[in-house]
Amino acid sequence: MSRRAATSLRKLTARPIAGPSTRCFSSTTLIPEEPAHPSVHTDKVPGPKGHAASQGINKIQDSRTHVVVADYNKSSGNYLVDADGNVLLDVFAQISSIALGYNVPELLEVARSDEFVHAVMNRPALGSFPPVQWEEWLNTGLMKTAPKGLDNLMTTLCGSSANENAFKAAFMAYRARERGQTDFTKEELDSCMVNAKPGSPDLTVLSFKSGFHGRLFGSLSATRSKAIHKVDIPAFDWPVAPFPELKYPLEEHVKENEAEEKRCLEEYEQILVQSKTTRPVAAVIIEPVLSEGGDKHASPAYFRSLRQIAKKHGAYFIVDEVQTGVGATGKFWAHEHWGLQAGEEPDFVTFSKKMQASGVFHKAETRPSAPYRIYGTWMGDPVRALQARKIIELIEKHGLVQHTQAQGTSLASALTSMFRSQSMVENLRGINEGTFLSWDFSTASLRDSFLGHMRKNGVQMGGCGERSVRLRPMLTFGEKHQEILLDAVQSSLKGL
Amino acid sequence: MSRRAATSLRKLTARPIAGPSTRCFSSTTLIPEEPAHPSVHTDKVPGPKGHAASQGINKIQDSRTHVVVADYNKSSGNYLVDADGNVLLDVFAQISSIALGYNVPELLEVARSDEFVHAVMNRPALGSFPPVQWEEWLNTGLMKTAPKGLDNLMTTLCGSSANENAFKAAFMAYRARERGQTDFTKEELDSCMVNAKPGSPDLTVLSFKSGFHGRLFGSLSATRSKAIHKVDIPAFDWPVAPFPELKYPLEEHVKENEAEEKRCLEEYEQILVQSKTTRPVAAVIIEPVLSEGGDKHASPAYFRSLRQIAKKHGAYFIVDEVQTGVGATGKFWAHEHWGLQAGEEPDFVTFSKKMQASGVFHKAETRPSAPYRIYGTWMGDPVRALQARKIIELIEKHGLVQHTQAQGTSLASALTSMFRSQSMVENLRGINEGTFLSWDFSTASLRDSFLGHMRKNGVQMGGCGERSVRLRPMLTFGEKHQEILLDAVQSSLKGL
Repeated sequence: MSRRAATSLRKLTARPIAGPSTRCFSSTTLIPEEPAHPSVHTDKVPGPKGHAASQGINKIQDSRTHVVVADYNKSSGNYLVDADGNVLLDVFAQISSIALGYNVPELLEVARSDEFVHAVMNRPALGSFPPVQWEEWLNTGLMKTAPKGLDNLMTTLCGSSANENAFKAAFMAYRARERGQTDFTKEELDSCMVNAKPGSPDLTVLSFKSGFHGRLFGSLSATRSKAIHKVDIPAFDWPVAPFPELKYPLEEHVKENEAEEKRCLEEYEQILVQSKTTRPVAAVIIEPVLSEGGDKHASPAYFRSLRQIAKKHGAYFIVDEVQTGVGATGKFWAHEHWGLQAGEEPDFVTFSKKMQASGVFHKAETRPSAPYRIYGTWMGDPVRALQARKIIELIEKHGLVQHTQAQGTSLASALTSMFRSQSMVENLRGINEGTFLSWDFSTASLRDSFLGHMRKNGVQMGGCGERSVRLRPMLTFGEKHQEILLDAVQSSLKGL
Repeated sequence: MSRRAATSLRKLTARPIAGPSTRCFSSTTLIPEEPAHPSVHTDKVPGPKGHAASQGINKIQDSRTHVVVADYNKSSGNYLVDADGNVLLDVFAQISSIALGYNVPELLEVARSDEFVHAVMNRPALGSFPPVQWEEWLNTGLMKTAPKGLDNLMTTLCGSSANENAFKAAFMAYRARERGQTDFTKEELDSCMVNAKPGSPDLTVLSFKSGFHGRLFGSLSATRSKAIHKVDIPAFDWPVAPFPELKYPLEEHVKENEAEEKRCLEEYEQILVQSKTTRPVAAVIIEPVLSEGGDKHASPAYFRSLRQIAKKHGAYFIVDEVQTGVGATGKFWAHEHWGLQAGEEPDFVTFSKKMQASGVFHKAETRPSAPYRIYGTWMGDPVRALQARKIIELIEKHGLVQHTQAQGTSLASALTSMFRSQSMVENLRGINEGTFLSWDFSTASLRDSFLGHMRKNGVQMGGCGERSVRLRPMLTFGEKHQEILLDAVQSSLKGL
């Protein structure tokens, strides 16, 4: 990492978390016109206009997954306005992909700048014709967030392709290590053209039960969240390792959870060892919190062991921070919670969502051996890099990672108290991980009913896994939003 | 297709090609400040500033694929300005991805509009929270170009993911047809979670030798252009069929070419038949011109047969128009050249590049059976849909498809004359396909040397295949650009 990037990262991540920091930042600093509270005036959300809009879209695109059709012009900060004019506190944030809020004036100003306007309408093929400002845009933006030890960046257009580019780089680096100084053989070059060995090798990516890494053919082969995402789609015969099923509250299940993590680590190592003689594991991919699969957590010690065991058996280690990255867990990158030592850092860290730009941080040693091996027309998008730059600047300026950590602490504490007397709710988790909180209901239908009540009570929240709900508020979520959220949770639980 | 879309498509495609139409449109109509000619003032292109910029970027990203670092603020219309201030006539257009030109004032105006500014900074999860304007934006934009019979649209972020979404939809539709009315079995749902049969079926996508369909794991398995794109990357064991190697000029090799196409069709059908009992082909994917693989063409009759044979054997037919789409071949979609009858239309048409938006046009019958089967966070990008809408409007308003067809005719004629006395150049092709022209040199190094001379002579042109060059000018390429291009080709050939 360049010295400049390293210094900036420390600024983003190493500030002491002051007790009263929740009081230092208010979302109205960034979004002066944010509404004071939700307001719902239709009997159900979505209302009639929302339904009509969905029906219109459904002539062209599947609308069965619509939650609400939104009026983004009227939305502001933490509040999403729907087609019927309902104002909802949004703690799902476009599946965890809005960092600061809707219509943040300083972001709109960036979009109106000449720099941005020229960048959006003159989209370059970045690999061959990059803009003269590209180095500067990266160094003053995305590179400021480069995880320790990872000073190279492949930009992409989405999280799935970030993961797949990490897979490709890992496969190439793995084969390069095996191959040594020699070049590709003619047999390799010929056989890969018919998708056969040795040119198309039988290498694998190991992923974890309940993990989600995307929906393209490589990333979907590593995804293990829900059958409906995978059924009928051909998949690579790649291995899956168990992920710990921890019991909550953690402090009451210390020994069981340790045993569960140990069991999972042993089985994971066994797969790595056994596959060596059949289809070696070139890379291991893991999310710091298995989000789409149900917000599954494990201890920092477990993740450190995962990383060490991967290294021991020669597998590259990919941390998928697409959902966990950019501050919501109270660290800029969630894997900073793990306490990895120098030399133990991940080989690849992938990102997307709240960063708006997508890509892979990696080490110079995993650059492909020859040009054009990882390449494409666009290879990222300069306007998303410019947007990311401003988001990063505002996060840093307003101390929003620390703010979110403090918000998470008080929110977790309030929810813990509230849920003490609630038999319907269990497994509150994510404590000490910012606002990245979740809990379970006993059934999926109860969960879905709760989410409907929340919407009617003015809060847009999301589900995950089979029967979980997840909080994914923006980084500008503050005390006043917390009060509204807690009231809505209480009312919605009563309404069930 | 909606009536409105059908009517608009006719406007885009069915205007008679008037003889003098090359004189009707001048690029200065759209781009008043376009330079009059190239100007190169460094000894080589790129010059010292370009090299320095590449070295700077290389600290972060691989710069070995850089051609020139560009100054997009200064570029205009058909002219790309590089870091050293050289002004190059750009007939490669960011690997065929710029439709109208750099800094087209009417496009910059769209980028400055409130509608656009709000859309770019409030990026929705389109599958769940689409904007209220989404139906309108699609109907007044992308849907106006929907190929006949394909009235559904999946939006994506790039061409590779467009192709992979088409694959997924084809696999699902294929299995749904086999399955009939029954739901997924428990065995299917369980087995797909470990990437095993029957849930992860042994179905395949058939592609063609020299085809290029992207670089993610599914699309790369169908890509057959160059070994360096594929080596070391695990691939699905999918079949490849031969693509005709036509001889030029076509009129001198009628019988041989017919025999070659017949041979290829027979082998293709044989693969479809033989695979039925092993790993059935669920989909066939083909580019109308195999571009990256060396600009390989075949006759409309060949493509009609491909489509008919796919249908006969139950395989879905995907036309990859990522590079060929949006007017450059003298039709809005290149597959319009084939003369397919009603009922013979493709099942899927994928697009990206010049459209700036990416996606898949398809039929309602290939919508997945259940929600969330084809889904993701962003599922396209509203700002690229808005950009596409304006591009489509300007193409229509200025008759740029017809203009490009006429330009292609005169350019092909001039090149044919010029090459008559040239022994270094062979296989001029793409005649009657707009400006989508290409030719071969005897060796790759001669080709590369030619491209260097062209740059020094003020023209940025691209290569493809082993020893080909391809013209991929914008749709605003006109008579004055043609003169400059022809002069540069002549000088560069002399310089070899």
